[in-house]
Amino acid sequence: MNDRVKSVELLDQLRRVLGPDGVITDPDVTESYRRDMMPLAPAGAPLAVVLPADTAAVQAVVRACAAAGTPIVPRGAGSGLSGAANAVDGCVVLAMTRMNRILEIDPDNRLAVVEPGVVNLDLRQEVEKEGLFYPPDPSSYDWCTIGGNVSTNAGGLCCVKYGVTTDSVLGLEVVLASGELLRTGRRTVKGVAGYDLTKLFVGSEGTLGVITQATLALRPLPQAPATMVAAFPSTEAAGVAVAGVVREGLVPSLMEIMDAASIRAVEAHLNTELGAGSGSAALLICQSDAGGEVAKRELEKIEQLCLSAGAELAYVTTDVAEGRMLLAARRAVLTALEVYGAWLTDDVCVPRTRIAELISGCAEISARQRLLIAVVGHAGDGNMHPTIAYDPTDADQFERAKLAFDEILEVGLALGGTVTGEHGIGKIKREWLAREIGEVGIGAHRAIKRALDPDNLFNPGSMFALD
Amino acid sequence: MNDRVKSVELLDQLRRVLGPDGVITDPDVTESYRRDMMPLAPAGAPLAVVLPADTAAVQAVVRACAAAGTPIVPRGAGSGLSGAANAVDGCVVLAMTRMNRILEIDPDNRLAVVEPGVVNLDLRQEVEKEGLFYPPDPSSYDWCTIGGNVSTNAGGLCCVKYGVTTDSVLGLEVVLASGELLRTGRRTVKGVAGYDLTKLFVGSEGTLGVITQATLALRPLPQAPATMVAAFPSTEAAGVAVAGVVREGLVPSLMEIMDAASIRAVEAHLNTELGAGSGSAALLICQSDAGGEVAKRELEKIEQLCLSAGAELAYVTTDVAEGRMLLAARRAVLTALEVYGAWLTDDVCVPRTRIAELISGCAEISARQRLLIAVVGHAGDGNMHPTIAYDPTDADQFERAKLAFDEILEVGLALGGTVTGEHGIGKIKREWLAREIGEVGIGAHRAIKRALDPDNLFNPGSMFALD
Repeated sequence: MNDRVKSVELLDQLRRVLGPDGVITDPDVTESYRRDMMPLAPAGAPLAVVLPADTAAVQAVVRACAAAGTPIVPRGAGSGLSGAANAVDGCVVLAMTRMNRILEIDPDNRLAVVEPGVVNLDLRQEVEKEGLFYPPDPSSYDWCTIGGNVSTNAGGLCCVKYGVTTDSVLGLEVVLASGELLRTGRRTVKGVAGYDLTKLFVGSEGTLGVITQATLALRPLPQAPATMVAAFPSTEAAGVAVAGVVREGLVPSLMEIMDAASIRAVEAHLNTELGAGSGSAALLICQSDAGGEVAKRELEKIEQLCLSAGAELAYVTTDVAEGRMLLAARRAVLTALEVYGAWLTDDVCVPRTRIAELISGCAEISARQRLLIAVVGHAGDGNMHPTIAYDPTDADQFERAKLAFDEILEVGLALGGTVTGEHGIGKIKREWLAREIGEVGIGAHRAIKRALDPDNLFNPGSMFALD
Repeated sequence: MNDRVKSVELLDQLRRVLGPDGVITDPDVTESYRRDMMPLAPAGAPLAVVLPADTAAVQAVVRACAAAGTPIVPRGAGSGLSGAANAVDGCVVLAMTRMNRILEIDPDNRLAVVEPGVVNLDLRQEVEKEGLFYPPDPSSYDWCTIGGNVSTNAGGLCCVKYGVTTDSVLGLEVVLASGELLRTGRRTVKGVAGYDLTKLFVGSEGTLGVITQATLALRPLPQAPATMVAAFPSTEAAGVAVAGVVREGLVPSLMEIMDAASIRAVEAHLNTELGAGSGSAALLICQSDAGGEVAKRELEKIEQLCLSAGAELAYVTTDVAEGRMLLAARRAVLTALEVYGAWLTDDVCVPRTRIAELISGCAEISARQRLLIAVVGHAGDGNMHPTIAYDPTDADQFERAKLAFDEILEVGLALGGTVTGEHGIGKIKREWLAREIGEVGIGAHRAIKRALDPDNLFNPGSMFALD
């Protein structure tokens, strides 16, 4: 049987399982399922995009594809920034967006059970009605899905206090390459029965199985946050302030940094003045959700640390609207950079004492490659997003942007950091993963991948090369 | 070459690597390395106990044992309660207690790098000098080792607020079955480069490799705790209070429960009166380390919830010594039960709303098996320790104690819980792991074990059967 006949048979089989509207082959439509938000990653042409509505359908798809030897690329909304959800030629893209039900919210045990296609913001809003809080808040929280968040172990702005996605996942339901349904974890807060398979699947970027359900730990809804903002005459001064906050044992619920290029871009975009209004080199925005006087005192301590570090301006506000506005400015950086055409964003994470060095390293790369590089990031945990602006119609600029992207990773590693703090390896940082974790580490990855997915069915070529 | 000759050759080789005092074969001495603290688990006769002083020595031991086909059972102090560290016949017990150096404390990045033989309390005290806090605090914290804590994913009293060991581990150094050194994780707070191998090794009970170094996340040292104690006329009332605390979004730093049998045992042991002094059915001890007025307010809310639930007595004290005394009473339960001869302790973890049902289930088992069962536990996370007192010289009592032990697991599972919240599976709960996670789950465990330890070198027969 030749490949074409096999493909036709597979498509027939998938249509029988999913119904005609569950299988898309029209290239005009499949186009929008081919890639995520990372322009550097290659994206192939899928045989089909399938949209299962329940776990049994996922199992049927996996069994059919396994029998046909057709690779599967699972995906959520496609908000990723590593190409992990990008199609490979001839694959079946398994889009989980129709499985978007919140199956249960249990306030008494502070947990929720959801399907993978639930949008992060929808979950946040539903649990908020019960006085509960789902912390992970990636920038794309208003459209990314929980399944994608789990698969990439997504972070966000909350991580300094509340951790990353893996810290909120109690258990998973995963369809394995055999089509079998694996249930990992549990509904209890603690549990050590067996290997921690839950946390193995979290962040595995769709290479080990298809997540069809997640049991998530919720927290009490925190207080409305108070906010502190400080403007610095140098990134070094801001770095000293961040190190001081960590050293003093302060744990704000958010601590974001913007460098000069980010400040300028946002000022132009929003037609407003941030910081000291005199060309500040760095802005630090902190929030505390500890409530009332406690939050105020916490932020006043940070304010003092900022002033001691040389801030030219620092103040605390308990005005929620003002805090929201400051945060909106921080969140506007990427949009503001679109005036240059396009952007590439890195997500190196460095020890919190090395943030200023990373920013100055990026400034050097910016000068060398003659491209604007704006650095924003989660100062509280060292996870920085140096973002390179370039004109995508200018091939030379694009080449230099790619060089800059890699040079930033180099600087991050040299500072004792990691090449990805929250976006993942995907299809763009395979070589960098190998550099970061070494041959023994890659060997362990290959062994685990082969153990759970012996025929390399799921997301082949993502994260690491199998041979 | 027969087995005896092979053993002699292996011992010679080990002595060359470790020096004569690094290899113990005297049965009088190896006896104390044969088992942990769980009387139900089988323990074999080891060929030798080896005490490596550095990572290179561990690699040499692993390579020598792999070549000889001799199994390795890694162990720390032996404070475990699942038999995971128990010897199997003819094995080499790899005792990590000589590798007990704290290699680094980095206050600016709030982390420590340690060897596995460091005693938990020693680390706590050292980091405290820097104003830092290592949360995991298993009951045996004054003698258990970090390596053992990591291998069992140990919990403790702090978990309700600070999580379990895995939440404090940033990275590991592990000697694999090949003798190669795997480095997992990183020194940064965030990082998603590759599979989360760190959390796979945490809790793997020595079945996948030998941990030779751990990078641990530290927290700011919390305030001296304030304490609330409440006495209840029924376990149901205490259960209502616990559910109320969770429901109200309160997160004390500690929330422990003692049932009537525990209270009586401790009262007799310490010759004092706990609770309302009128035969209380349950005692709840809560602490808050949020500091000053905040802690007081938090505990006063809990006090009110206790009184609303029917507590016959409840009060808050900011007196640190009084808090310590109340906690000492809680910690004295197991010692107090030794008057009966011996004890077997379970560690089922149930959803926090089901604690009262678990305690009444244990009361029924106690009546049926005619044995005292005292229930103490970490009410804040549902992790309960029903502890069966028995006379070890009475074979019939021991048989009934074993039955009771299993019946408690049955009740825990039926309540939607797990068979082990913090002690692990080891050599006593293999069948229970299989029951809890099912055939697909066991299959995934076997696949991962074979992938990383194809010759079943490490801790064979622990956690699950390979075939």
